[in-house]
Amino acid sequence: MFRTHIGPVEGDDNIVYLRPETAQAMFVDFDNVVNSSRVRIPFGIAQQGKSFRNEITPGNFTFRTREFEQMEMEYFCEPGTDEEWHRYWIDFSSDWFTGLGLRRSKLRVREHQADELPHYSKGSADIEFLFPWGWGELETISNRTDYDLKAHIEKSGKDLSYYDQPNNKRYVPYVVEPAMGADRSALAFLVDAYDEEEVNDDKRVVLRFHPSIAPYQVAILPLSRNPKLTPKAREVHDLVRSRFSTQYDETQSIGRRYRRQDEIGTPLCVTVDFETVESDDAVTIRHRDTMDQVRVPISGLRQALQDQLDGIAADVLSD
Amino acid sequence: MFRTHIGPVEGDDNIVYLRPETAQAMFVDFDNVVNSSRVRIPFGIAQQGKSFRNEITPGNFTFRTREFEQMEMEYFCEPGTDEEWHRYWIDFSSDWFTGLGLRRSKLRVREHQADELPHYSKGSADIEFLFPWGWGELETISNRTDYDLKAHIEKSGKDLSYYDQPNNKRYVPYVVEPAMGADRSALAFLVDAYDEEEVNDDKRVVLRFHPSIAPYQVAILPLSRNPKLTPKAREVHDLVRSRFSTQYDETQSIGRRYRRQDEIGTPLCVTVDFETVESDDAVTIRHRDTMDQVRVPISGLRQALQDQLDGIAADVLSD
Repeated sequence: MFRTHIGPVEGDDNIVYLRPETAQAMFVDFDNVVNSSRVRIPFGIAQQGKSFRNEITPGNFTFRTREFEQMEMEYFCEPGTDEEWHRYWIDFSSDWFTGLGLRRSKLRVREHQADELPHYSKGSADIEFLFPWGWGELETISNRTDYDLKAHIEKSGKDLSYYDQPNNKRYVPYVVEPAMGADRSALAFLVDAYDEEEVNDDKRVVLRFHPSIAPYQVAILPLSRNPKLTPKAREVHDLVRSRFSTQYDETQSIGRRYRRQDEIGTPLCVTVDFETVESDDAVTIRHRDTMDQVRVPISGLRQALQDQLDGIAADVLSD
Repeated sequence: MFRTHIGPVEGDDNIVYLRPETAQAMFVDFDNVVNSSRVRIPFGIAQQGKSFRNEITPGNFTFRTREFEQMEMEYFCEPGTDEEWHRYWIDFSSDWFTGLGLRRSKLRVREHQADELPHYSKGSADIEFLFPWGWGELETISNRTDYDLKAHIEKSGKDLSYYDQPNNKRYVPYVVEPAMGADRSALAFLVDAYDEEEVNDDKRVVLRFHPSIAPYQVAILPLSRNPKLTPKAREVHDLVRSRFSTQYDETQSIGRRYRRQDEIGTPLCVTVDFETVESDDAVTIRHRDTMDQVRVPISGLRQALQDQLDGIAADVLSD
């Protein structure tokens, strides 16, 4: 852990540590949440924030860093239902990753062996991703039992038991904790989406993101900066931006702009050209993955974009 | 500042400090942003995150804390336009606070005197709020000139000047920096909205939030838990939640539930009663500030809620 001091003088009586996990704040809050939020067990308290660990060997880009962003939930449940909830959150988390495009073949659930379990845990499972350097943990889902609440009861003298009114019983809840690394999850999505391929003797770099996590869904690209095209291209942009997240780009050649969008993973490009303005009031949609182009009337553009995005999402998920 | 050490052994060669502001990361990123984002000056880079200052006298609740959330922007502009942009961001920030309901009478802009200015600043203004213990700073808008970029140029040897293509000139940009304390701004909104009044010999506590920052805009409250009311109340809830942020509450007496919504600043409550179900298909809207109640048909409910929310927003802003 990182050790520092509070106040102007460094001494033995003012040592503090940067938190190595966000979890404990949620145990401290348990009582307040029960008394103020009218929740009933089972329920969860979740938070996202920085944690700090003085790692001896940070590395693999942003995989292991000394300051990192953590997303954790303490899910409070009745003793006896804990194993069922543990399984529920393992499945939920796996589905969350694959639902946003991580390939099932690069994801695995690894149950901890008895000798790996920390003293507070009755069972623990890692969701791991196959990084270029091997399998690495994205999230750990632990059955922490009543260890933490009992420890807080013992040190604080407070009664943190829960009264289950409908069933007229009182117990100290068990806790299932999904703890995810936000930075390394982002890294996994980037690594999994990254692709290089040969196109016309040239290397094409493309991020094959699921449309839900692509920074932009649609790029609007007038063929050139010709003032004949700009007003129409802006008009098309206004039409599309009301429904999709978009970028407008009119710099440099159209070929370079397609590649730039490939590199940031934009699923679809819409090109406005002279035919659009002069004759057919239609535009070209260019597909990130197949590079196919289709001509569609502007009147049907938003629906066509939605259909193509749905298709790309289905392709990513089936991969 | 907070001093700590990286690595397993604490020595003089591995001392690090927790950052006292978020600003410097944005100067380091300036070059990357210019080269990858196709932006032109003037533009800003903004970020939100934790900063740490080893304050000797923390206090006044969350006003001065050793770990705090900061929102900062470095706004890069052409030398000579910096004073105009400085004024622009002072006005913009003041309007942002008052536009969300802080009273103009409790907000002031205080220009720093020459002897208060740090060495890097050509001019600085604090936006201050009148807290119960006196005026306190919410945000500082500084004209940092080209001090930071020049310092980075000197230390790194990198060329961080900007080429203004349309005008064919090159310069090191000036920077205007709005730096806001997120925690103390939240505290100001809470303090400013808090009100106590006598109602029927009882104390009523109410948070008179602008509807845009109230945690919920509308609460749906069946008169009681009677099973005759629940399905209709749920139906009304579904209708309202598609447009407003809502809470559903059927515990305890209707009077206690009104007060609970007052305490968290919910502008409007909708009550479903036996008349709703048995005769008029209408509900009662209860106003947070006046406590007036009006009966409206469910068919016109969403529009009536929007009108009343607009009215509350206008009242808050005129205060």
